Amino acid sequence: MAQKPSIPKGTRDFSPAEVAKRHYIIAVIKSNFEKFGFQPIETPSFENSETLMGKYGEEGDRLIFKILNSGDYLAKADPIVLQNKESNKLTSSISEKALRYDLTVPFARYVVQHQNEIEFPFKRYQIQPVWRADRPQKGRFREFFQCDADVVGSKSLWQEVELVQLYDSVFTQLGLEGVTIKINNRKILSGIAEVIGAKDKLIDFTVALDKLDKIGEDGVKKEMVEKGISESAIEKVQPLFNFKGTISEKIDQLSLLLAASEEGMKGVEELRFICENVSNLGLNTAILDLDVTLARGLNYYTGAIFEVAPPKSVSMGSIGGGGRYDDLTGIFGLKDMSGVGISFGLDRIYLVIEELNLFPETVTSTSKALFINYGEKEALYSMKAITKLRSFDIKVELYPDNVKVAKQFQHADKRAINYAVIVGETEMKEEKFSLKNLISGEQFLVDFEGLKTALL
Amino acid sequence: MAQKPSIPKGTRDFSPAEVAKRHYIIAVIKSNFEKFGFQPIETPSFENSETLMGKYGEEGDRLIFKILNSGDYLAKADPIVLQNKESNKLTSSISEKALRYDLTVPFARYVVQHQNEIEFPFKRYQIQPVWRADRPQKGRFREFFQCDADVVGSKSLWQEVELVQLYDSVFTQLGLEGVTIKINNRKILSGIAEVIGAKDKLIDFTVALDKLDKIGEDGVKKEMVEKGISESAIEKVQPLFNFKGTISEKIDQLSLLLAASEEGMKGVEELRFICENVSNLGLNTAILDLDVTLARGLNYYTGAIFEVAPPKSVSMGSIGGGGRYDDLTGIFGLKDMSGVGISFGLDRIYLVIEELNLFPETVTSTSKALFINYGEKEALYSMKAITKLRSFDIKVELYPDNVKVAKQFQHADKRAINYAVIVGETEMKEEKFSLKNLISGEQFLVDFEGLKTALL
Repeated sequence: MAQKPSIPKGTRDFSPAEVAKRHYIIAVIKSNFEKFGFQPIETPSFENSETLMGKYGEEGDRLIFKILNSGDYLAKADPIVLQNKESNKLTSSISEKALRYDLTVPFARYVVQHQNEIEFPFKRYQIQPVWRADRPQKGRFREFFQCDADVVGSKSLWQEVELVQLYDSVFTQLGLEGVTIKINNRKILSGIAEVIGAKDKLIDFTVALDKLDKIGEDGVKKEMVEKGISESAIEKVQPLFNFKGTISEKIDQLSLLLAASEEGMKGVEELRFICENVSNLGLNTAILDLDVTLARGLNYYTGAIFEVAPPKSVSMGSIGGGGRYDDLTGIFGLKDMSGVGISFGLDRIYLVIEELNLFPETVTSTSKALFINYGEKEALYSMKAITKLRSFDIKVELYPDNVKVAKQFQHADKRAINYAVIVGETEMKEEKFSLKNLISGEQFLVDFEGLKTALL
Repeated sequence: MAQKPSIPKGTRDFSPAEVAKRHYIIAVIKSNFEKFGFQPIETPSFENSETLMGKYGEEGDRLIFKILNSGDYLAKADPIVLQNKESNKLTSSISEKALRYDLTVPFARYVVQHQNEIEFPFKRYQIQPVWRADRPQKGRFREFFQCDADVVGSKSLWQEVELVQLYDSVFTQLGLEGVTIKINNRKILSGIAEVIGAKDKLIDFTVALDKLDKIGEDGVKKEMVEKGISESAIEKVQPLFNFKGTISEKIDQLSLLLAASEEGMKGVEELRFICENVSNLGLNTAILDLDVTLARGLNYYTGAIFEVAPPKSVSMGSIGGGGRYDDLTGIFGLKDMSGVGISFGLDRIYLVIEELNLFPETVTSTSKALFINYGEKEALYSMKAITKLRSFDIKVELYPDNVKVAKQFQHADKRAINYAVIVGETEMKEEKFSLKNLISGEQFLVDFEGLKTALL
């Protein structure tokens, strides 16, 4: 192989510095998940195809990575299908397994499969990679991690309150102050659709309304009319074009607007409970905002809808999202199991923290000190100290080879190791170590205790 | 879907209790890897097929999971191949990617691809799942984690010394005292083959010799003769049939036995350096032993060979292994890059710790206390305390629904939560909490500070 090897498009290698930063974010998310009572599960990377297929729409089915059966996989294939090269028809006969596309469907499968062992309400979190055969582009990968927390088996709105707190807690701990947690409710959207008398135009309506800041009230209304929403319908929700104020003011406006819609009013009450209690309990640094244009996951969310926008100084899409779905496990035959959950967008959170320069300097996997190798005797003396230092959980290492000293110092520099330890005849005789600070250039002669204290 | 959903054979779901235990082991391994100066990398779950194919022998190629190309994958397939249903020939035209089979080949690929960014010697660790289309059986899975640490770019034997220490450090910290780290050297094996004048019989020789305890010297010799090893050859290595004593005594014996073999003597010297320095530095709880029948990885190891046996009270195969390979990256065109590494067998280590009942009781992901839900007002009062407790990193939760109290206590019991917090009219009026120890049954009235202290 003359050519340098490469990796499939849309996938990534992570260097030590990148892994350290990713694991720092994951550790913060994980510890907060657990603090809020969520427990981890892990599911296999691949599922039986019938578990995944048909759960994400036609587009989703196309984007699921299928695994070829082992052995003589063509043996049972239909000769006609082969002859006609009908890829679509062939797939199910040569592939029985597929890579996980998200964590929600495997979670639903897990809940149904293990329903007799699970104690409900079940608060689970899951941090694992998923795979999608999407066209790779900036910030979109074919393999990426999802970080999900869901509660299943309770309709209590306290869950929604806690999920808002959970977002606030994670982003505060990551130093990402000023994220906006947008909230909406599917029932509000249904109410609006009812009021404008056009259920099928709901998406057009919210997409247009979302452009208010950009194209102004007249522009939005023009677009709505073009999409076939009548002027009289638009008139009925006129307050939405000047939808300002505190959350509770907004909720009051919605309450008037949706008075005629039973479902809409249910949504208003849910929102009110969640927002009032979040306000009672307080948030650290995040801002909760009601956004009636928020319409993500319209196909499955039935109650609250969440989306998190990064601090305003960063231009980036949402860094989290979630909502309530009343029938999580129905697809696998277990009815009436309500769920609510949120997800953290690891890759985007990484980019935001990087852009704002918020990774702590301590986030690194490098060693505290490099012992310079001056030969076998010195190396043994060094290794004795290294062995003891490690027993105190101090990360140190010996340069393995007795090569030119300049090269060894260069190694420390390139590895961003801040201290070198030098051991020669003098040090060995006096049972000491020369400790050199590679940033300041200062050098001290210390005994083992001094070494330990400096590197702890 | 009437039938309960299931997962592909050879894969596993991990429950919260299992994940907590697995992550405990991984955390110990990881922190030790870093303490010894290894840095993490992560590579994609799937690689280009040409990266993996042909690297693990014919059997390996068969066991690699292939991913079906997306879209109209049959378009470019050879019609004749399809007509003849030649699965083997078709594969490369309908599948370009494959799931990682181990962590070593992706590591070699990584080193070659990123050689200009890497600072050598490069000490990397990698803890990720791998996939093999093996026939599943007890303790053998189609998806499992590998935990590898390797150094590439140095031939220093101090690496081998440190890898022995690393094994000792991890197993000591896991409470697995008395593991045996068996060491051998490929050059010793070559020396033996040279002395018995039968390079091709080396495996037969070591397999037979390994049965010494079971079938005795005569039995072993009989088997060797049956395998075609001459009696005069066997005579030449007679000392191996009574190969006892300390490591240094064994090394002295080998030194006499292999005096005629240059390569064998090189192996003796390497072994001596490693074992003497391990002895100089001392081990905590592990036992280092020289085992000349250890012949794993004979196809790729060129120097030291390691294998770790669990404590003698447990009947289980090896829980770790590794060795030195002089040409790790040659398959990808980068020559003369020596590597040495070890691997930890996560699944088996789990089983051993479970069998010896060595998982600390603190290894759990469950909450410290469950607040009983007596209604909206009480829940808000509870949530205020919960919010404050979580700010001190204390894992607590509210039962989300106001259901029968007995059911809520049952929930705490099934979740193995040890405390319940009860908030009624009295507690709210007095700004107190009733804290009930669910194991002893004792109940105390405490203020917030008391609650915090009890749950910290």
